[in-house]
Amino acid sequence: MKINEIGEFGLIGRIADAFKPLIPNGWEGIGDDCAMIPWSDNRSLLVTTDLLVENVHFLRNRISAYELGLKSLAVNLSDVAAMGGEPVATFLSLGLPSDTVTTEWSDAFFEGYRSFGVPLLGGDTTSSREGIVINITVLGQAKNSHIKRRSAAQAGDWIAVTGPLGDSAGGLQALLQSLPPEADTSELVRRHHRPRPHLAEGRWLGGRAEVHAMMDVSDGVASDLQHILRASSLAATVSVPELPITPLLQRVAAQYGWDAARMALTGGEDYVLLLTVSDAGLEKLQAAYTARFGSPLHLIGRCENGPSGTIRYLGSEAQFTGFKHF
Amino acid sequence: MKINEIGEFGLIGRIADAFKPLIPNGWEGIGDDCAMIPWSDNRSLLVTTDLLVENVHFLRNRISAYELGLKSLAVNLSDVAAMGGEPVATFLSLGLPSDTVTTEWSDAFFEGYRSFGVPLLGGDTTSSREGIVINITVLGQAKNSHIKRRSAAQAGDWIAVTGPLGDSAGGLQALLQSLPPEADTSELVRRHHRPRPHLAEGRWLGGRAEVHAMMDVSDGVASDLQHILRASSLAATVSVPELPITPLLQRVAAQYGWDAARMALTGGEDYVLLLTVSDAGLEKLQAAYTARFGSPLHLIGRCENGPSGTIRYLGSEAQFTGFKHF
Repeated sequence: MKINEIGEFGLIGRIADAFKPLIPNGWEGIGDDCAMIPWSDNRSLLVTTDLLVENVHFLRNRISAYELGLKSLAVNLSDVAAMGGEPVATFLSLGLPSDTVTTEWSDAFFEGYRSFGVPLLGGDTTSSREGIVINITVLGQAKNSHIKRRSAAQAGDWIAVTGPLGDSAGGLQALLQSLPPEADTSELVRRHHRPRPHLAEGRWLGGRAEVHAMMDVSDGVASDLQHILRASSLAATVSVPELPITPLLQRVAAQYGWDAARMALTGGEDYVLLLTVSDAGLEKLQAAYTARFGSPLHLIGRCENGPSGTIRYLGSEAQFTGFKHF
Repeated sequence: MKINEIGEFGLIGRIADAFKPLIPNGWEGIGDDCAMIPWSDNRSLLVTTDLLVENVHFLRNRISAYELGLKSLAVNLSDVAAMGGEPVATFLSLGLPSDTVTTEWSDAFFEGYRSFGVPLLGGDTTSSREGIVINITVLGQAKNSHIKRRSAAQAGDWIAVTGPLGDSAGGLQALLQSLPPEADTSELVRRHHRPRPHLAEGRWLGGRAEVHAMMDVSDGVASDLQHILRASSLAATVSVPELPITPLLQRVAAQYGWDAARMALTGGEDYVLLLTVSDAGLEKLQAAYTARFGSPLHLIGRCENGPSGTIRYLGSEAQFTGFKHF
């Protein structure tokens, strides 16, 4: 059977089943934003890894080396943020076509990578025949009591995100359609290339008992929310008119006839945090969050009892699914 | 400037310099087989990562999926062995051409990967346009007092290896020359495809004070020994006739006119351990090692004061250098 017939999550399920017997008690492997290993009495080591391949995840002539270094690390740091943790060390494997990539390119790549101030402790470099290959592993740490699991959502929880959705997808569209680099389209491309991992937000939310489940938005809320719902055996309702879509994306979408709501739900790569919040704690959390970060949590729906992993979309005729890797 | 003008170690040096200010006191980053992070009062976390790219590190139609899974993990476990540590968890990123790779292939790959009994705790899967991409990160742990650094060699130390050199290079030659799969050539190919990480040897040697520096043989002794010598500011003499070359490799080399000594020194991928041993402790260590493992440490040379990183080869007209990645 071809891999694409079982899909990415089918493959991951097979792997998780095969290795489950080898995983020690108290350790957590495949199934959340990071793996968790006991570190000390009250802390865990968090581990996440991401592979980026030229012409699948990026186009070399459309992203600067600086931005590629920045974004490659940002998407991993976002996974640590999603657990309520803080990053402590990174490891980078870099496959480079040796005759085409220059030291100016690699210097700029590492300048972007270094922009978060997280140490690089090791890695591997090799030549690559085909294109640039980037793999990053990030180690983080968190207090055990601060770790937010995907499986912790409860019926009645509010569903919230920590920032706007869809700008990154808009930037990707602008690149793919080779739109003229006007102020608006350039800003969308910039947001696609320079995601900000919500580390401060994640660490703060990790310390709040009102927050139940948390993850980051990488494949798009339509797909990512399903992971929380399946892990928590819940369904959800999402209100499409409540999605936080920036005026910027609304303007460009109107100009080029894009469906901004679809981009917000299925585009992915926003790297904001997606979380569920107890109904009883919402008001207090919202007030404290707004006081701390100067902007509110954006409420986009509710968790409810129902068929595990299903999402009803209110205020739209359409149904939505997220990005598929295979 | 093109990357291949500064070479792999030039690139790594630039990266190490750029990130040095970010690395906390007591942590060790680039420069040894694994990075080291304090884990508890008397233990360190060890981290190593390796990137393997199709058509650079392996040819898909020349290695079985089982062997590719086995070897990909073995080369990382070997780095943990070289620090005197034991592996605790692994993370795998897999880029697969989704329309050509089958679930039978991935099932066999994971069977090989699982053969060491070390848990897989997470990773990333993605499609790849060009070929199979494999990145593995292994976490290990060791008592601080057992960790053997490359920088700990001393003048007068004996240089030893824990197993034969060159069989892997012979197997690669047999593949590249498409030699007929007779018993001898098939066995060499098998050794190239199924390296055994010397974990038990590494852990045992880690506990012995007679052992000063240690690393694993991945690029070939001619190159790898230079790392120990440079880190320890020493020179060395290597006796070419003392290299442990198997009768198997000697037979095949004689048959096809190969230079077995050159293969032993520069072929790499043997994944035995390369270590230096104090002169005063050699006899005791050798007796205990032989009693424990049923075969001796193979002595191939001595460390000495002299120009840092230089190796004199005795008993051969030739000079040797190891595998270059760029």
